[in-house]
Amino acid sequence: MSHTVRAAIIGATGYGGAEVIRLLQAHPYVHITSVISTSNAGAPLADHFPHLQEIVVDRLDALDVELIAGKADVVFLATPAGVSAELSPKLLAAGLKVIDISGDLRLKSSSEYEQWYKKPAASADMLERSVYGLCEVFGDEVKGQDLIANPGCYPTASLLGLIPAVEAGWIDPSTIIIDAKSGVSGAGRGVGLGTHYAEVNENFSAYKVNKHQHIPEIEQALSRVAGKPVVTTFTTHLVPMTRGIMSTMYATIQGEHSTQDFIDKYKAYYEGRKFVRIRQAGKTPATKEVTGSNYCDIGFAVDERTNRVTIVSVIDNVVKGAAGQAIQNLNLMYGWDETTGLLFSPVYP
Amino acid sequence: MSHTVRAAIIGATGYGGAEVIRLLQAHPYVHITSVISTSNAGAPLADHFPHLQEIVVDRLDALDVELIAGKADVVFLATPAGVSAELSPKLLAAGLKVIDISGDLRLKSSSEYEQWYKKPAASADMLERSVYGLCEVFGDEVKGQDLIANPGCYPTASLLGLIPAVEAGWIDPSTIIIDAKSGVSGAGRGVGLGTHYAEVNENFSAYKVNKHQHIPEIEQALSRVAGKPVVTTFTTHLVPMTRGIMSTMYATIQGEHSTQDFIDKYKAYYEGRKFVRIRQAGKTPATKEVTGSNYCDIGFAVDERTNRVTIVSVIDNVVKGAAGQAIQNLNLMYGWDETTGLLFSPVYP
Amino acid sequence: MSHTVRAAIIGATGYGGAEVIRLLQAHPYVHITSVISTSNAGAPLADHFPHLQEIVVDRLDALDVELIAGKADVVFLATPAGVSAELSPKLLAAGLKVIDISGDLRLKSSSEYEQWYKKPAASADMLERSVYGLCEVFGDEVKGQDLIANPGCYPTASLLGLIPAVEAGWIDPSTIIIDAKSGVSGAGRGVGLGTHYAEVNENFSAYKVNKHQHIPEIEQALSRVAGKPVVTTFTTHLVPMTRGIMSTMYATIQGEHSTQDFIDKYKAYYEGRKFVRIRQAGKTPATKEVTGSNYCDIGFAVDERTNRVTIVSVIDNVVKGAAGQAIQNLNLMYGWDETTGLLFSPVYP
Amino acid sequence: MSHTVRAAIIGATGYGGAEVIRLLQAHPYVHITSVISTSNAGAPLADHFPHLQEIVVDRLDALDVELIAGKADVVFLATPAGVSAELSPKLLAAGLKVIDISGDLRLKSSSEYEQWYKKPAASADMLERSVYGLCEVFGDEVKGQDLIANPGCYPTASLLGLIPAVEAGWIDPSTIIIDAKSGVSGAGRGVGLGTHYAEVNENFSAYKVNKHQHIPEIEQALSRVAGKPVVTTFTTHLVPMTRGIMSTMYATIQGEHSTQDFIDKYKAYYEGRKFVRIRQAGKTPATKEVTGSNYCDIGFAVDERTNRVTIVSVIDNVVKGAAGQAIQNLNLMYGWDETTGLLFSPVYP
Repeated sequence: MSHTVRAAIIGATGYGGAEVIRLLQAHPYVHITSVISTSNAGAPLADHFPHLQEIVVDRLDALDVELIAGKADVVFLATPAGVSAELSPKLLAAGLKVIDISGDLRLKSSSEYEQWYKKPAASADMLERSVYGLCEVFGDEVKGQDLIANPGCYPTASLLGLIPAVEAGWIDPSTIIIDAKSGVSGAGRGVGLGTHYAEVNENFSAYKVNKHQHIPEIEQALSRVAGKPVVTTFTTHLVPMTRGIMSTMYATIQGEHSTQDFIDKYKAYYEGRKFVRIRQAGKTPATKEVTGSNYCDIGFAVDERTNRVTIVSVIDNVVKGAAGQAIQNLNLMYGWDETTGLLFSPVYP
Repeated sequence: MSHTVRAAIIGATGYGGAEVIRLLQAHPYVHITSVISTSNAGAPLADHFPHLQEIVVDRLDALDVELIAGKADVVFLATPAGVSAELSPKLLAAGLKVIDISGDLRLKSSSEYEQWYKKPAASADMLERSVYGLCEVFGDEVKGQDLIANPGCYPTASLLGLIPAVEAGWIDPSTIIIDAKSGVSGAGRGVGLGTHYAEVNENFSAYKVNKHQHIPEIEQALSRVAGKPVVTTFTTHLVPMTRGIMSTMYATIQGEHSTQDFIDKYKAYYEGRKFVRIRQAGKTPATKEVTGSNYCDIGFAVDERTNRVTIVSVIDNVVKGAAGQAIQNLNLMYGWDETTGLLFSPVYP
Repeated sequence: MSHTVRAAIIGATGYGGAEVIRLLQAHPYVHITSVISTSNAGAPLADHFPHLQEIVVDRLDALDVELIAGKADVVFLATPAGVSAELSPKLLAAGLKVIDISGDLRLKSSSEYEQWYKKPAASADMLERSVYGLCEVFGDEVKGQDLIANPGCYPTASLLGLIPAVEAGWIDPSTIIIDAKSGVSGAGRGVGLGTHYAEVNENFSAYKVNKHQHIPEIEQALSRVAGKPVVTTFTTHLVPMTRGIMSTMYATIQGEHSTQDFIDKYKAYYEGRKFVRIRQAGKTPATKEVTGSNYCDIGFAVDERTNRVTIVSVIDNVVKGAAGQAIQNLNLMYGWDETTGLLFSPVYP
Repeated sequence: MSHTVRAAIIGATGYGGAEVIRLLQAHPYVHITSVISTSNAGAPLADHFPHLQEIVVDRLDALDVELIAGKADVVFLATPAGVSAELSPKLLAAGLKVIDISGDLRLKSSSEYEQWYKKPAASADMLERSVYGLCEVFGDEVKGQDLIANPGCYPTASLLGLIPAVEAGWIDPSTIIIDAKSGVSGAGRGVGLGTHYAEVNENFSAYKVNKHQHIPEIEQALSRVAGKPVVTTFTTHLVPMTRGIMSTMYATIQGEHSTQDFIDKYKAYYEGRKFVRIRQAGKTPATKEVTGSNYCDIGFAVDERTNRVTIVSVIDNVVKGAAGQAIQNLNLMYGWDETTGLLFSPVYP
């Protein structure tokens, strides 16, 4: 195809990188030309991911900006915090487009980054230049850009579930409580007691209570939409499953709005956006209903006893919360339909 | 032993019944004399629970009040909603003590029962006579009684986590939000698509949002402690694991209280009660840390940004949330130490 | 596309049917025109499978052969045993092509069918006419046919792992022992205590020892390849996971053959067949390495101490063991490349 | 109690050590006086195992033989391979009794140890002095001894299932194939990609095919019973669950023996041994039916078509396969009933 784009993936031995590979394999306009690992350059990719045997490039490339620039048009960064801050300027300087799946470029305030991530922030130039690619909300800003900060997994699920109500003034932003749950793949492929099977299996735990680095990312977007500073309570839990995020969100209703009102409001807000699906009244989505796909499914329950709405939003953290939305952003960057290569059904069961 | 008590268990082919059997096997003062199943009388118990082969009585007895009265002193009811309402008066009339693990006798208001359970309530006499056996809070009322309403699993975890703060006036009861999660054993042993392995596994779902029958039970106890009507937001979720409940609870703080203040307050409240363990600051308990045991572990995180406290409370739903607390109530009824037969360690991993 | 084929799926509320839908959505030459359920005609498909909301046809059709013939060219039968025996003749008579995912048409001997399935067999005409679609072995027979008996999940994994060695005379067929393990989706979506989450989770069990209906299917194919009757020992186990089959197979080696010899022999046998991947010496495949995909991965370990070879073969039971191979057969029937629409990567993790 | 024994546990931050603690807590004649960790001496035990908060000694002791000798009568070694070989002589010299849960002292041949474990073997003196504590078979040799080599998890399940048939000459030992499966706790608490939740979950894999260090242990015991060298095929698999081992075993029958014959033979062999339970014909045990308990459950299926018997044997690897059998050996050492402190029911579900 004349408009084939050449893609390189950095951080390919992690889960985010592997998922970018899986999804790009099915993309009609993209060809993977380089799969890069700092620590394992030269090794067969299948040594790290046997599932990819005979499917994509045989060997892992080293991280060499010049070489990448010779082979690729766009680079996906599926790297730990801190890498992109350093690497992105060089990749951009070499003429590459960059889609950063890490959290390095999402916060506009470098002091907030440093407070929550406990690392030096990216340069002010990078922070200003990067576009926060929450596609269904800020997607119009992505077209033609060359540096995308792909949203975090929790923020994606939470913000898609909250923003229409906040923007409409239907809920009081100061009352928002987000009780979020994630499968273990969200913790990445690094080893530690916290991801040991025998510790996680048959276990449900809370972690980083009030301390998760996705808190400022959520508040930054909510504040922008609300037009005033929003502070939230946000708790993360680890679910004994591999994929999936649910944000169960609570807020006090402003005005009078029924469950059906919320459904109608959200359907209108997301009209034409195929990846957001709204459940009918009386139903809320389960994480398995989006597994392996780029969908974000949302349901509502208004409680007249307490005048609160409960909003349930689910995504696959590795797809819509990482690799899938990254490719959706790629589509928007290039002016393609945002669903290109992403319209596959969830895997069920 | 001179003070051996003879116990019968009704509803023995369900999970609650099986757990009563497991725990009573280890009780020094109790002997199981009859294991009763309405639908499977005469069948070998091991046909239904192979794990109990050669461990307890061989065959299931029929439900015959007179026969039970001849063999037992106390009866555990591990039966579906509606059974105890009918059966308890007969068992009491036959001179038996009754510990009801079902929800039939927990709500003092028959109209509330009928609204939430969609079934006819027990008689006014039964509702008045029954004692709500939340041991660490209302345990003093249990001694010498003969009809105990054993608390529900969600209410046990939630109330033990909330009551000291509510009673002290440290949190505003009208702001309480309970985000609860349970393993699948809580749904019982009945078959249905909702408990099919391939539907539940690798899945996280919310259910009965704002509609769970444990809501009025929680509110009844909180209202009693607060001295005024309390209405809460309560959401239940299904976790892909067998055992365990976590209630993550949010409330706005009244006055100024740090995480350590909450810890100290709760340690004082539960002093001498071995089954409640308070985590130190910076830690919250995980469900696996109480699996198979009668412990309820609680942790706190105060967030100064939002002036809210997050309280995390975990139990094993089948033990502290059902069979274990039932035996704790038995101990209190008979005036024994409440820990008798229950001081075993959690099973880990 | 000029050569678009219209497909109908019968039995669409089960797991096999849902997977045919998922995979056909990604097929470039096929359009789903009807999704049929005997028991739920007229209902929204999303009531049964919320994950398919807004993805495929809205409503379930009734089973009406004439209507199907007006809308479709080919029918996938994802139905319980016994249905296809009755239905296939009618569908064929109406001019439809039939791919039967059930076991009804796999055994050439009606008496064997009746002995193992405990049901009346299909007519002799159907049994003769149907082609056993084990693509990588007997795929040449599929082209242009209109009635395909799609192989069972266990036979697919086991036969692909055994046939090259049996055909070469490298192993003694009378010594073959197949120790097979399957995820729970293989048991279908019907409810029962045997698929209850709390019974299956954290459990590993054997079932139908020496009695599984896939035994004669495996022996029929091995006997054909060996040129003499082969009898095997075959045990099935249930693994607490949703998808995946592993057959661990043992046989005494005839002649002298190293692990590498087996690898080379199999690579030669499956040359050009993309869906069979052979692991290098020292490695055996895990089920997760093929999850969600149409691959069958195979590894070997020769033990000189015992003169036996251990062969490990894995598939995704719902894909290569059912819906995926069915579509591979569709491709072969129509003369398309067998990989059309099926070359997606496994989902990992 | 006058005959209270003081116990120390070395390696207490692993799963085997934690389980010794759990089980000894329920033992009427034993008191835990020291919980020892080489790497974490001085730290609170609850930092490593929050589930043990307020249950047992507060702090971890250092490994100091003299100190141990002052506090304890018996030492449980739940340590990695290589530790016991060095440590046991010192503990014995200090007058302590030693129960070694590691594999260091099980093989009588030091060359076999070094071949399979890839480590220097214990001294010839230690290897000769140690008694292999497979209680139901060699238990008579344990009484009064002071150095017990506690059997491995796989050997326990496999040998209890095979020995009565081998001893009786009912099966041909040269045809024995053991297909074994284990939950992840068998891999210990060390971290690595092989125990990462997202790698293990929804996955079934074989490992160490023909190379597992339990092979010589199994063969040593079978050879002793058979009175001639026995070589077996033994494969290990990892099951996505925490606890449980199943050995599915195949052998050619010598003579004519039905399923019921095997049942009767094994019931006679294990008469009076409470921890071996034999299933009736038509049933085989599942791992969950022994979870958390010291039982080994066994079932049989004779196949007349192949003249083979399939023997299914299950244990909880952490209990009967480690800590439970260790305490059973303690009981035998001291001349107590072997079931003392171990007669608790499995945890179900």
